[in-house]
Amino acid sequence: MDTRRKFIQQGLLAVTAATLAGVPNSFALADPQRGHKQGKRDDRFNLGVAGYSFVKFGLDESLAMMKRMDVRYLCIKDFHLPLKSTAAEIAAFHEKLAQSNVKGYAVGPIYMTKSKEEIDNAFEYAKRVGVKLIVGIPNKEDLGYIADKTKTYDIRYAIHNHGPEDKLYPNATSIYELVKGLDERMGLCFDMGHNMRDGRDPVADIKRYHTRIFDIHLKNVTSATKEGSTCELGRGVIDIPAFVKMLRKVGYGGMCSLEFEKDMNDPLAGLAESAGYFRGVLDASA
Amino acid sequence: MDTRRKFIQQGLLAVTAATLAGVPNSFALADPQRGHKQGKRDDRFNLGVAGYSFVKFGLDESLAMMKRMDVRYLCIKDFHLPLKSTAAEIAAFHEKLAQSNVKGYAVGPIYMTKSKEEIDNAFEYAKRVGVKLIVGIPNKEDLGYIADKTKTYDIRYAIHNHGPEDKLYPNATSIYELVKGLDERMGLCFDMGHNMRDGRDPVADIKRYHTRIFDIHLKNVTSATKEGSTCELGRGVIDIPAFVKMLRKVGYGGMCSLEFEKDMNDPLAGLAESAGYFRGVLDASA
Repeated sequence: MDTRRKFIQQGLLAVTAATLAGVPNSFALADPQRGHKQGKRDDRFNLGVAGYSFVKFGLDESLAMMKRMDVRYLCIKDFHLPLKSTAAEIAAFHEKLAQSNVKGYAVGPIYMTKSKEEIDNAFEYAKRVGVKLIVGIPNKEDLGYIADKTKTYDIRYAIHNHGPEDKLYPNATSIYELVKGLDERMGLCFDMGHNMRDGRDPVADIKRYHTRIFDIHLKNVTSATKEGSTCELGRGVIDIPAFVKMLRKVGYGGMCSLEFEKDMNDPLAGLAESAGYFRGVLDASA
Repeated sequence: MDTRRKFIQQGLLAVTAATLAGVPNSFALADPQRGHKQGKRDDRFNLGVAGYSFVKFGLDESLAMMKRMDVRYLCIKDFHLPLKSTAAEIAAFHEKLAQSNVKGYAVGPIYMTKSKEEIDNAFEYAKRVGVKLIVGIPNKEDLGYIADKTKTYDIRYAIHNHGPEDKLYPNATSIYELVKGLDERMGLCFDMGHNMRDGRDPVADIKRYHTRIFDIHLKNVTSATKEGSTCELGRGVIDIPAFVKMLRKVGYGGMCSLEFEKDMNDPLAGLAESAGYFRGVLDASA
């Protein structure tokens, strides 16, 4: 076993132990990296895609795009796998992903602000899908109820921040303050773009809140204001090399999933450029 | 003027002085970089596309792809601007490029192995197009004749290496040995992929031959053998961060133009991933 391979396997073991216990076995077989010979890429965090990037596309087309980019982790959105899916439908879904060498590592974001039943359904869904992480948007008054669920199911729950328009969770701080006293399975899906749009520093916030950051929506934005919008990863106001440096410093062990909300009718070019940029930063700074 | 802007302008001045005197004025107005706020990217070498990447596409489609990637320099191939083009056709071509914020910085590769007339035509063409660099494939016995032309026209001539199948110029060494004693306007368009396919080290060869390297076909390949083929820039056997480090060390002042010979019927995703990768490496290592 060469050093590179060993490093990948060690990385996988660490990720598996930390965040992905119980995910189907095929996970451990998938090589999360490309056929790269440099041996420099940091394997503790892996590149994925947030399902919302493919909101205009069915699963087959989405997987074809992931294959072009060689991105192997997907945060599953309900338009690709409805919450009411049967066991057979879920099995077929996983099989289809496996054929494209893709792993569904989490579900969400799932809105659950209307009733407790939505919370119950989300946990049952995650259990049936076989993932250990839900990205969600809950009511604040339900957080205690959700914390109990995370214990019962041993499934982590990551609240998604959505920028200055979001009355509940505009930024990482607003979520961290709510979950820091709750069960350690309660945390954040850190949307670094919306955080920046709310005038918050994504690098500093990774440092502050990393113990509760379970997932990242990897993106850049055109300005640090409400008017900012998603752009290709290397073209925005967030300093991605500094962001990656901080991820390494704190030992982030989760996924970095591209959520590309530009050119949504034809997102492949922007997603591919962003994937390339992230890999270039990783390789050049490892 | 902020530091970033100043740095860009200084970079442009250096490039202009060194290699691009006589190019139409609009060159100096084009910002060669994206709206990136990090102030880290090295401006001495700029990202372009080698026209051959678009061999299956007309000019309009090619420019649309360049716009998606925000790549602003094109090495002009004859299928986009034939050698017999009139002054009016050339003016219209430049105008179309300018509308997409693209600059044609050189012409070629042009084959000129059949007659001296092809050489004469190529220099007249480059002069009419207004570029100061020809990428060419000549006969070895015509190199003296071509060296005289480069003096007469003050147009540099870069011979393209084409890998182990190429009887004339398989690698950078084969060209350097032929041109090192000729006029300093005689040099190489360094195809790093074909060089690697011929078992040669692209990083070491940049160090050895940089004084005669006027243009680079930026690419990666799947193996360091004849069987190797082009792949996305971050997925091959060439260590791109090390390559960029050497470009900086020797002060390379030319273009790095992506030549993507995979998925040629639908190259945008691979080109965009490669452009992103190169920018990520530049930003993370500056």
